[in-house]
Order: sequence, then C-alpha cells, then structure tokens
Amino acid sequence: MLNEKPHLTLKHLTLKHLTFNIINVQITSEYLERAIEQLAKLPGTGRKSAQRIAIYLLKQNDDYAQKLAQAIVDLKEKVTRCSICGNVSDSDPCKICDNPKRDPSAICVVEEFNDVYIIEKSNEFRGRYHVLGGVISPMDNIGPDKLRIQELLKRVGEDDQINEVILALNPDAEGEATSYYINKLMKEYDVSVTRIAYGIPMGTELEFIDEATLSRAFASRNSF
Amino acid sequence: MLNEKPHLTLKHLTLKHLTFNIINVQITSEYLERAIEQLAKLPGTGRKSAQRIAIYLLKQNDDYAQKLAQAIVDLKEKVTRCSICGNVSDSDPCKICDNPKRDPSAICVVEEFNDVYIIEKSNEFRGRYHVLGGVISPMDNIGPDKLRIQELLKRVGEDDQINEVILALNPDAEGEATSYYINKLMKEYDVSVTRIAYGIPMGTELEFIDEATLSRAFASRNSF
Repeated sequence: MLNEKPHLTLKHLTLKHLTFNIINVQITSEYLERAIEQLAKLPGTGRKSAQRIAIYLLKQNDDYAQKLAQAIVDLKEKVTRCSICGNVSDSDPCKICDNPKRDPSAICVVEEFNDVYIIEKSNEFRGRYHVLGGVISPMDNIGPDKLRIQELLKRVGEDDQINEVILALNPDAEGEATSYYINKLMKEYDVSVTRIAYGIPMGTELEFIDEATLSRAFASRNSF
Repeated sequence: MLNEKPHLTLKHLTLKHLTFNIINVQITSEYLERAIEQLAKLPGTGRKSAQRIAIYLLKQNDDYAQKLAQAIVDLKEKVTRCSICGNVSDSDPCKICDNPKRDPSAICVVEEFNDVYIIEKSNEFRGRYHVLGGVISPMDNIGPDKLRIQELLKRVGEDDQINEVILALNPDAEGEATSYYINKLMKEYDVSVTRIAYGIPMGTELEFIDEATLSRAFASRNSF
C-alpha cells in the first residue's frame, strides 16, 4: 500500500499556511493588547520588549504604573521649551538663561537637551546654551530651516555681551557639517567661534583608539 | 622659573573632584527629570534609554503620550487574572476558559501569559491553559508555593473531563525542574502527563545546532 503514509507536498504546506493565516489568535485581554501595542511604539522597543514591560507593570503591586502614567502626561503638558535657548524647561525663560550668575559672554551650541545635561554634569561650562533641536541631515530630510539656527543668529546679533560661540556637536558627519555651516554664518558677527576639542579620551590607551580619532588628535595637537 | 607651569598633583585632583560633587547639575525641567526617573525603572531601560524615550515623547505632535498613559492606567485597573487558568484577562473566567468550543480534555501548562499568546498563534492547540506565573527558581527565591501549582492540582482533581496535562515550559534548568516537579505530583491523578517535543527547530541546519539540543533530539527520537 503505497499511499498509507500521507506525503508532505508543497500543496499541503501552502494549505496549512493559509489556515494559519485565517484563524486568529484568541486574545484574552484587549487592554493588555492595547498597552503592548502602545508600548511597542516607543523607540528601541519591539513587541517582545513591550510584552516584558507589560508583564512588569502587571506584576508591580505599588502605584508605579499610576506614577509612570502621570509622569508621561506631565511630560507632554507641563514641559515647554525655553524661547531663548530652546532647552526643555518648566518655565520660560529656563533656569539657566534666567540665572544672573551664568557667564553672559559665552553660548554653547548643542544638538539636544540631553547634551546640556551632560555638559552641566561635567561642571566645566558656566555660560549659557543654545539647543539646535537636531543637526543638518539631508538623509533624514532635516535642513538648516528645521533647526534653531535663525534663533541663534538673532540671539548673537542682538546680544552685545556674547563674544564666544562654542560648538559642542557630536563628531559624526552630520555634526561636522552643522558645525561648518554655523561657523560660516557666524563670520558676519563679531564673535569668536570655537569648538570643543576632539581627541583621545582621558583614561584610555592609544591601542584602543580608532584611526579617525587618532588622526584628529594629531591634527589638533597643542603646544605642551 | 621652575614654577611657571602649575604642576598637577594628587591634591589638585582631589580638590577638583570635591568641587565636582558639591556643585549640582542645573536641572531646567523637573517634570522631564521625573519622567526619565520613572521610565528608567522599566525593565531593560537605563537612564540613557529613558532619556531617549522622553525625547521621543516630547517630540510627538499627536496624542500618543496621552494614549500611552491611558493604556498603562487601564492595564493596571482593568486587566485581571482568570481565576481558573491564571491567564491575564479582561473578564473572569477568561475567553479561552469560557469558550465551549475549546477541547475540555487537555490542559497546557505554561510559565507566563505571553506563552499562551505564542501557542495560540501557532494554532496547534485547541485545549485550555494553565499559567503558572513563573517557574521554580531557588536562586530567585521562587518555590512551588509561589506558583499556581496547587490551583493546577485542584483543577485536575475536580474536573473529570481533563485527561491530559501538556507541559510546555522553557527548556532551561528552571523549566526542567518545574516540569519534573509537576510530573511527580500528577502521578496521584488519573491523567497522562506529556510535554512538547524539544529538538531541532524546523528550517535550521544541523551544523548550527548546539550540543544540548542535538543530544535531546537523539534521546527523543521517534520512529519514522
């Protein structure tokens, strides 16, 4: 009897596959599904991470979920941008622009507000900031008009106290292009444009440094 | 003049370090800070990811943040556990336990509710589930009493229709230990205990299979 054992043919596979697509998953909690769906939209979070977060939230006994939800709502409703520097702030102008103890002569240009946080943590810079809100990136369709560059020019043009603009953008292609662009525009103003030093990070060993960094470190060498 | 250039001594470094600790970062938005703090508590999310999520939420124009917050609140307030199978559900009993079309003779034992989702998606199993809520893990201080094992025994003991308990736990040390434990307890009941086959996954090549899987595949070989 040749036909006793069913043969697995391509037709079988296709039929099976079709059945698979037709019958839906029985979802027991629409609310859970909705939460996973929303969480999965967060950057760096896929469906698996979203499920893990949802399990975590479900298992928490305290009012953490409530606090998290409130913090997200407040974030959207109460956090604004400083009209002077573009930094995120609860007030306008922000605490840094409004602080008379900050050095009014220097502006540090950064990409995003988290860079302000990082520089503030280093406690090296006591001037004020200008947050561009991004960098020039033709690939992502971000031109100079989408950044707060006009605001920077206006600020530098109107405030006589400013005599230095320090560029502190990331040392990648977009950051470099943006630095060059701003430097060029600044030539019309009576300010010196500097940028933070790119080179060998402290505490590392030369053998672990990539060539681009090493090459920059040589090009930007200082007298000892 | 030997002392023209200041020497960097350990004392300088220590003083500088102290200064660094004394002066605080000037935070411009308390609400943003609070949101980052709450987001950073999520599993798999550190401060950097939390910042990235906060930037993303701030930049969204639509009402996504509101929807996300509502979904999180609903998750905690409206999602409950099915008192029969322990699966997450908007109703009690859940849609699967309450569905007369599901096969009443088989119970599939899984670790967590997301396993139910995965098995439902495969559309292979038409019985009902039992969600343990974890696996035995002495390292994490999770004993059998913290899992829904007593509920499983009660269910099998009280429902005469059940004649098969299928174990579908993860094939790691904890999953194996839990499977053995449940199998042992089930000997007192008139049900057959089976477990899903562990072996070579479909569509892979033998050369990419680890030894433990290969060894299991040989031990569990079937007649062709």
